Order: sequence, then C-alpha cells, then structure tokens
Amino acid sequence: MDAAGGGELSLAAVRDALVRLEDSVVFALIERARHPRNAPAYAPAGGGGRSLVEFYVREAEALNAKAGHYQKPEDVPFFPQDLPSTLFPTKSSPQVLHPLASLVTVNDAIWKMYFDELLPLFTVDGDDGSYAETVVLDFACLQLLSRRIHIGKYVAEVKFKDAPQDYSPLIQAKDSNSLMDLLTFKAVEEKVKKRVEKKARTFGQNVTLEDNAGGSGFKIDPTVLSKLYDQWVMPLTKDVEVEYLLRRLD
Amino acid sequence: MDAAGGGELSLAAVRDALVRLEDSVVFALIERARHPRNAPAYAPAGGGGRSLVEFYVREAEALNAKAGHYQKPEDVPFFPQDLPSTLFPTKSSPQVLHPLASLVTVNDAIWKMYFDELLPLFTVDGDDGSYAETVVLDFACLQLLSRRIHIGKYVAEVKFKDAPQDYSPLIQAKDSNSLMDLLTFKAVEEKVKKRVEKKARTFGQNVTLEDNAGGSGFKIDPTVLSKLYDQWVMPLTKDVEVEYLLRRLD
Repeated sequence: MDAAGGGELSLAAVRDALVRLEDSVVFALIERARHPRNAPAYAPAGGGGRSLVEFYVREAEALNAKAGHYQKPEDVPFFPQDLPSTLFPTKSSPQVLHPLASLVTVNDAIWKMYFDELLPLFTVDGDDGSYAETVVLDFACLQLLSRRIHIGKYVAEVKFKDAPQDYSPLIQAKDSNSLMDLLTFKAVEEKVKKRVEKKARTFGQNVTLEDNAGGSGFKIDPTVLSKLYDQWVMPLTKDVEVEYLLRRLD
Repeated sequence: MDAAGGGELSLAAVRDALVRLEDSVVFALIERARHPRNAPAYAPAGGGGRSLVEFYVREAEALNAKAGHYQKPEDVPFFPQDLPSTLFPTKSSPQVLHPLASLVTVNDAIWKMYFDELLPLFTVDGDDGSYAETVVLDFACLQLLSRRIHIGKYVAEVKFKDAPQDYSPLIQAKDSNSLMDLLTFKAVEEKVKKRVEKKARTFGQNVTLEDNAGGSGFKIDPTVLSKLYDQWVMPLTKDVEVEYLLRRLD
C-alpha cells in the first residue's frame, strides 16, 4: 500500500488511503450508473456458458497479472487460479504485514454483494446494448471495493501493534466475536457513512455554468453510498481484520 | 452512440453525450493523478522491447474486442491491426453516419498528445512503483478522450444535415480550411472551457465533513482541464469533423 511507503505503517497513512479510495469508489459507481442494468452481460453465454462479466473479469485479471498487478496484499484477484506471472519488472514494497496476510480474502462475498445487492440499487432497469463497456465499469467497481475492503489487513496490523496485550488473548482463544467488538467504533462508522454520502452529493451533481448547486438531481442516489458502506464495506472490512488477526500470532 | 438510440440523430442528444463525457474525462484524470508520473511504465521493456503501457493497451484492446467493444464509430482502437472478433452477442446500433465514418481516426495524435503533453501537466514527478495500476488508468483516460473526440463524427453529420447547401460546395472543393471555419463557434468553445474547469473544481475537491468548500486544494489543477479542451480536445474534434465531412459525399 502507498501507506507503507516508508516501511513504517501509521494509522494516519492507512486512514488517508481509505479516505482517498472513497472518492474512487464514488467515481466508479457514478460511471457504471451511466448505463442501465444491461442484464445480458450477466447471463450465461459464449464459450463454456460463462457470462460476459465472468469472462471479462477472468481475462482482465490475467492481463493485469502479466502487467505486474496483484503483488500487494490489498490487491486480491477474484479468480486467483492459474494467474500468469508478470512479464515486466516490478518494484517490491516493504513487507509490513504478517506473511499469512495474502491468504485473507473476502472476494467471494464482495462478488455476490455487488451483483445481487448493490447493482440493482444504483442502476436503472433497461438495456442500452453497451455490454462490453458495462463489464469494464463493473470490473473497476469490483476492484476498487475489493482494494478498499482488503486494506483492512493494514488496519488490523496497526491496531494490533498499538495494543497487542488486548488482542493477543482473544486471538489465542480464537474469539472472533470479541475481536469484532474490539474493532468496532460506532462513532467513526457514522462519520464515514456521512462523508461518503456527502462525496456522492458533491461528485454526482450535474455541473452547469449556471449556479444550480446540484438542483437538477444527482447521477447516483447519495444514500446508496452510505448504505453500501454501512451494510457491506465496513462489515466486510472488519471480517478481513478478524481473519487477519486470527492468523497474526501463527 | 447512446445519442442515436432512436435511430434519429439530434444535436441535443449529441451535445448531452459530449457534456456527460466531460465528467468521465475529469474523473479519469483525477484518478490517474493519484499516482506520480511513474516513468518506468513508459520505457521500453519486457517482450519485444515494448513499453508496459503499449503492451497493456494492445492486450486490453484485444480483450475488449472479444467482449464486443469497438462496434460503434466513436469507439476507435489505438491498435486496430488484427483485433479479434467478439465472442459474445452484441446489439447492433442503427447506422446514422456515412459508412466511411469508420475510417476516420485521430488516435495517433491523441496518443502523442496524451503522453508527450498532457501527462506531464497533471502528474507529479516521481515513482510509487504502481506501474500496472498506472497503465490501467492511462488506458481509461485515452479511451475516454478518444471517444469524446470521435463523437465529432456525429457532430459533423448533424451540422451537415442541418445545412447541406453550406457544406457541400466546400466538401466538393476539398476546402478543409473553410470547413474548419464553418465548424468553429468561438463563443461555444469558451463556454465548454469554462464548464470543464468548473467540473474539475467541483469533482477534484477534497470533501470532508467540515464545510471547507474546496479550501484545501484540488486533486488536479482545474486550468489543466480548460487547457486540455482548448488546445487539444476541441481542435482534434474539429479535425475529426473535417475528415468526416470530406468523405460525406463519396
């Protein structure tokens, strides 16, 4: 992660990375919302009965791997089987996480959430025929949500380092519920929900030369963003944190 | 183009598509500006001495073609040689342009402009090692700029249909300069420049829960956007319009 640039992990740097990624998530959802649902992109078709979106994500991940992606613990592929090696020189980042960090993934849950729950909330019914563009935009949303959520590995590491005496007994007892409680800060979560909703209101307005101040509606319902963070992004991030912590003393 | 959904091309629909794409261009540039220049992504390397960015764009275009992209006259690949056919069913759009529209491309000029002129203007010097992410974001910028500029084909068609008596003699005389004059509306161009700058100011602000109103700087210099449109996007769009019109009576 950029937050680990100096080799020393700080909570401020991890928070900055998370806050910056909120903008990217909002942008990506607004871009996907340009197109209607486009159901044919998700129906079994083509080679082997796979949907266009599954075909595209598998192939795009293979291409990204050749280009040097998926070297960092927060970049987790959705289809990790048989990913090719990079063909280009990469720069290695300092290892600040426990080596087992790479095993922690909640991508299956992210995939299901995105297609079953989120997509119907922020796209309108319909079919504009732009299936290829649609799945490219879906992949961008999926990747950003996955990176956002898997940065939970760094959050957990920072919190553990800050208070190993609180975490270690719960880890040794494999007490997931108490770890979850220890990681939960309701006041912080409320702030995040409000901030992403404000970002959606700001970035989703229809800007004209007249001073309309968003008067003509938004490109995406801002409450979808607070719901996304409340119901899925923050809970899944904490799942990542717990899964990471449970391996932290191995 | 979405603007041709009903089979009937209207200037209002083409303008709406252009205005909406401004948002996408601003988003894409802001996203690329998250990373510094990352020069190693552009240096000859890997297989055949190609740069990472050239490798990535070639492969990504091949994948997008398999997914059904590049079926519309405004979607023009940068490396059109040997693109594979689509593996998935596509929906054909009504043909509203002259059949020779598909021959019109200014992608070589867009490529050169983007890497030689634009990139140094809106990215900072430096190397964060995220080369794969960087070229993915470059490709998004390139594709959006290319689509924006090649929508000039529809602009030209609408203008021609509106006043064939003005355009036809100039087309027959192959008088590019007079066509360019006829297509140029300085007042409209000034409005576009102001609008994209305002969009960059709106979408590039650092949104916090406190009411700072962009007080803490922008993620991209808003004047880069007006310069981009003034010096490159609008002139290249008019090049596309002239090239299209010169073939319009064939």
